[in-house]
Amino acid sequence: MTDDALVIFTPSGKRGRFPLGTPVLTAARQLGVDLDSVCGGRGICSKCQITPGYGEFPKHGVTVTEAALSEWNEVEARYDRIRGLKEGRRLGCQAKVMGDVVIDVPPESQVHRQVIRKSATARAITMHPATHAYYVEVAEPDMHEPSGDFQRLCVALKDQWQIEGVEADPALLRRLQPILRKGEWKVTVILYKDHHDKVRIIDIHPGFWEGRLYGLAIDLGSTTIAAHLCDLRNGNVLASSGLMNPQIRFGEDLMSRVSYAMMNPGGDREMTNAVRSAINELALAIATEGGIDPMLIVETVFVCNPVMHHLLLGIDPVELGQAPFALATSESLSIPARDLDLLSIHENARVYILPCIAGHVGADCAAVALSEEPYTSEDIALIVDVGTNAEILLGNKDRVLACSSPTGPAFEGAQISSGQRAAPGAIERVEIDAETKEPRFRVIGCDLWSDDPGFAAATAQTGITGICGSGIIEVVAEMRMAGLVDPSGLIGSAEQTGTARSVPQGRTHAYVLHDGTAEGGPLITVTQGDIRAIQLAKSALYAGARLLMDELGIETVDRVVLAGAFGAHISPKHAMVLGMIPDCPLDKVTSAGNAAGTGARIALCDTSARAAIEREVGNIHKVETAIEPRFQEHFVAANAIPHATAPFPELGKIVTLPDVSFNTAGGGEGGRRRRRG
Amino acid sequence: MTDDALVIFTPSGKRGRFPLGTPVLTAARQLGVDLDSVCGGRGICSKCQITPGYGEFPKHGVTVTEAALSEWNEVEARYDRIRGLKEGRRLGCQAKVMGDVVIDVPPESQVHRQVIRKSATARAITMHPATHAYYVEVAEPDMHEPSGDFQRLCVALKDQWQIEGVEADPALLRRLQPILRKGEWKVTVILYKDHHDKVRIIDIHPGFWEGRLYGLAIDLGSTTIAAHLCDLRNGNVLASSGLMNPQIRFGEDLMSRVSYAMMNPGGDREMTNAVRSAINELALAIATEGGIDPMLIVETVFVCNPVMHHLLLGIDPVELGQAPFALATSESLSIPARDLDLLSIHENARVYILPCIAGHVGADCAAVALSEEPYTSEDIALIVDVGTNAEILLGNKDRVLACSSPTGPAFEGAQISSGQRAAPGAIERVEIDAETKEPRFRVIGCDLWSDDPGFAAATAQTGITGICGSGIIEVVAEMRMAGLVDPSGLIGSAEQTGTARSVPQGRTHAYVLHDGTAEGGPLITVTQGDIRAIQLAKSALYAGARLLMDELGIETVDRVVLAGAFGAHISPKHAMVLGMIPDCPLDKVTSAGNAAGTGARIALCDTSARAAIEREVGNIHKVETAIEPRFQEHFVAANAIPHATAPFPELGKIVTLPDVSFNTAGGGEGGRRRRRG
Repeated sequence: MTDDALVIFTPSGKRGRFPLGTPVLTAARQLGVDLDSVCGGRGICSKCQITPGYGEFPKHGVTVTEAALSEWNEVEARYDRIRGLKEGRRLGCQAKVMGDVVIDVPPESQVHRQVIRKSATARAITMHPATHAYYVEVAEPDMHEPSGDFQRLCVALKDQWQIEGVEADPALLRRLQPILRKGEWKVTVILYKDHHDKVRIIDIHPGFWEGRLYGLAIDLGSTTIAAHLCDLRNGNVLASSGLMNPQIRFGEDLMSRVSYAMMNPGGDREMTNAVRSAINELALAIATEGGIDPMLIVETVFVCNPVMHHLLLGIDPVELGQAPFALATSESLSIPARDLDLLSIHENARVYILPCIAGHVGADCAAVALSEEPYTSEDIALIVDVGTNAEILLGNKDRVLACSSPTGPAFEGAQISSGQRAAPGAIERVEIDAETKEPRFRVIGCDLWSDDPGFAAATAQTGITGICGSGIIEVVAEMRMAGLVDPSGLIGSAEQTGTARSVPQGRTHAYVLHDGTAEGGPLITVTQGDIRAIQLAKSALYAGARLLMDELGIETVDRVVLAGAFGAHISPKHAMVLGMIPDCPLDKVTSAGNAAGTGARIALCDTSARAAIEREVGNIHKVETAIEPRFQEHFVAANAIPHATAPFPELGKIVTLPDVSFNTAGGGEGGRRRRRG
Repeated sequence: MTDDALVIFTPSGKRGRFPLGTPVLTAARQLGVDLDSVCGGRGICSKCQITPGYGEFPKHGVTVTEAALSEWNEVEARYDRIRGLKEGRRLGCQAKVMGDVVIDVPPESQVHRQVIRKSATARAITMHPATHAYYVEVAEPDMHEPSGDFQRLCVALKDQWQIEGVEADPALLRRLQPILRKGEWKVTVILYKDHHDKVRIIDIHPGFWEGRLYGLAIDLGSTTIAAHLCDLRNGNVLASSGLMNPQIRFGEDLMSRVSYAMMNPGGDREMTNAVRSAINELALAIATEGGIDPMLIVETVFVCNPVMHHLLLGIDPVELGQAPFALATSESLSIPARDLDLLSIHENARVYILPCIAGHVGADCAAVALSEEPYTSEDIALIVDVGTNAEILLGNKDRVLACSSPTGPAFEGAQISSGQRAAPGAIERVEIDAETKEPRFRVIGCDLWSDDPGFAAATAQTGITGICGSGIIEVVAEMRMAGLVDPSGLIGSAEQTGTARSVPQGRTHAYVLHDGTAEGGPLITVTQGDIRAIQLAKSALYAGARLLMDELGIETVDRVVLAGAFGAHISPKHAMVLGMIPDCPLDKVTSAGNAAGTGARIALCDTSARAAIEREVGNIHKVETAIEPRFQEHFVAANAIPHATAPFPELGKIVTLPDVSFNTAGGGEGGRRRRRG
């Protein structure tokens, strides 16, 4: 009989020999096995639960007897009595190795467990949060060896958790002494330990504290502020909430906000205060929704475009409104939440803001990169985050390029005659019969199509109020497919198209999608101006992508990822009919949903992801569309639907676009347009 | 002819060979010669002035010709025209080495120049301030290589000054962009770079900024708050000022303030607010006195006892009022001044607080140690900082001990019947004729003795109002030397002493030092109670010193240093007659003045001193008087004047104390006292 034994951990497969009597937790730590513990092996926290396996393990070449672990001790028995230990489970800090054994670490005992995300296309999040609770036993003060209570706490953290360099604010030092005494020199310390190894005490509780810690992942957009409330232990999203960015009252889009700051002394301050107030409000609302105390929110991660980034930080964005679009600071920031006046969450909460890539390509694009990881991709991916500005990433593991393209707000339903934000009653899906030119559609808030029985009743409450962003893309693409619009973007007359739904409007035509006037509702049409607005937006998007393809020296991309809350609702086929994106097999066009928000959640849950994106952002090559002459060329060529010159062979395999032309020589809007172009 | 030349710098003696054409500043930097420069060699700042020596230098073995340096260039000529360059001076960044040369670096061109202090006993301060101005030229933003303005500033600091890891607050980032543009990408950055290599931007100015930076060295005492305003370039003290600690209204001494905090919820907060307000007020006053903008004060160093330390930091001092006297934190602190609500100085000013040695031995004692450096002493030094509590250091380079002894406020004139604080009109020097028992004295504000002609006229304005701390020590010692007080501390009656100045007071006697009642002034006497108070105080001081001597295993000390603002005024002979300090050759008893304040100034001017005291404090062994039984024994034995058992041979060489005894069996205060003891 030997005096040591083989210990094999699953699922990691790590193995080693340990002296008989070694606690399983100790063996796990020595092997670097991911086994959680908050109390440091004192049998208090029960986080280190493991499941020993017994019997034959031919795969591992061992036989595990019933005596492989020490018998239940008092600590385990008490824990089981009070809290109940699951069948087959042991506490890793109590069970000692007495013979060869196979130990399974269940997911809930892993610190760095992976959180499987619902979207199959997106990667999992590995839990590696910056903020974590540590239980320590602190030496009592000794008159003969005088040292501060804080210094003895630091020694305890070093001895019991190998954590050094701990800092604390004076305000926390104020609370330290009564808490140490209340806890009888046993305390739970909430530490923020970032990927640069800065360690700060966020909070301290007497004794063993069983509370949970939460974080906010905030996608701070020009139009909306969206937040996820996450459990920092397991990454679970407790609540998601959003509100309108109150800065809208200073300007709908970013450049009008920059102008507001330029024209109004103190205007940037007003906007900073407005957005900070809104974030406080949102934090309170989401905490209520998640049923938690907002003071348990100890971290917040922000992703945002450069203008919002500067306004959040209280920096005048004026330089971002003019070449060379200089950011005040481009690297990531880790600062106290109170520096941003975020006072509705924990007083020592930390804020992490992802790095910006360039003056037009912000932390939101960095977050998309973090979520979609083009820099690890084998094939060449084109990732477009569709919003008021489109941020575009192109590349693979060898090289990644980025640019921003000024699409304007048309894709969000703004500047569209019947456009509206995505809300109940908005038309979001459209089909037009190529023969009859008759449309059918669906509205947000109702699963029926407009020609289904019961549709009228089902939508009586919301009404049919307008067309949202994804709806306008579908209807324009459907109009093109149905031969109502020609490649130049002209809407044909009733005569040319053979449908009374084409109605004259000045010197151009409009297509009547829905006439609700009989019921007191709106007349919803797609006008020639709407088509032009969509053409401008899609040309900008395509031209940006094409510019990056030039830079990379490629003619086609392997796959396209549509990101952005709006991107999630775009139909790939319709996007390609419009020529928003380069030609590509349709099954290679996927949606990443709100990838920026996902990137924010990843950064919130995983400090190694923060290190990764800080590293990768430095390697992303920025292409500035505003000063690149070829951008203008690409933009003009992309004005046609789908494109004046590019062949779109993949699109051709699934859709045959009617070869119509509604231009009449010397007359009509299309003719004028052509002369100008 | 060779293509390099020998360059010898004085006073450092550093030498090396350099290619012809090397600027003197470059040669100095490569050799590590201390030659200042703010502009980094651009001929702007004129800080790098040097004096070349010409002719024979047998000591160095070189002959320096007139052609050893390049001729005056345009930059030097322009500087001389506008500002005037001293005879024989050159700008080190402009003058190039063209032959063997001896270069003298004048004191004003040295960064780490030594500041000679007036007091001969104290050491010089080496200038090594944490906050310093750096002129940099920052790369302009480039759309093709986008990076934040802050990141390009950091690159400039790294390339031009080899400074890395620079951090800045969001509020500073807000100001960065307009300043960079105003300065046309040339800026002067005020950096705080501490001995732990943390680097923060304090301020930034467009172009080359010629302003000066200032710091406050604050000795935060229980009774008074004293500050020195120092020029951080040369250590000069521009102004010194002080005010009463407003916490006095919550309690005269430290323990009564601790009690106030214990008895009154929020009482510690009140005291914290009071002292912080006073410091703001003091900073404004001293800036006015020094004729500078308070916003140029970028650093503040605090020294203080542990209770003041905690109250300044906003920490309830309750634990310091009871064994084991646990400090909340003992190590040094480097924090933003705004964390202490110090808003009257620069918004990004930093605060450095020296480490505490123990719960009774604070940062003020650490500052005394820094000033007096017992840990470098060859002989054994006893250093006593005399105040309400006496802090005592004993040792040499091998070992240093420290303790605190509760002397009470008698040495400061408190609890003395005619006692008063040191102010005009207070008796500060006393002599009593051993034959006639008649006194003569001097008062603060007048250089005449009371028996000099014109004394009455000279003091008519102030009057003669009471006895200050040093005066009470002198008068009691003089009474003992004149045979008016016996070794047990009893004042003899008129009959016993032969002078009508001994007047009965209850069952004891008092000595009339000055009767001003005829002129409407006070009757100033030394009562038996006064003698007892001084005996208690001096016994505590002696017992503390003696306890440390026991610990070190010595019977005599080599020298005694009296520190503290009050220590500066104590006459060594009188202190020894009283037995305040152990017997020692009188010429070995020196005053260090306000050594704690000096230590604060040293820490303000020299970051290497901060590192030194942080290191040394860890080696100082603390002896706790409160729990040491021998302290009580020493205290009782030290009650006699000068001492019941210790021989005081050195004192005996210069003073013969009358062998009197005023105890009358069974009666009088002395008899009662003896029974109690």
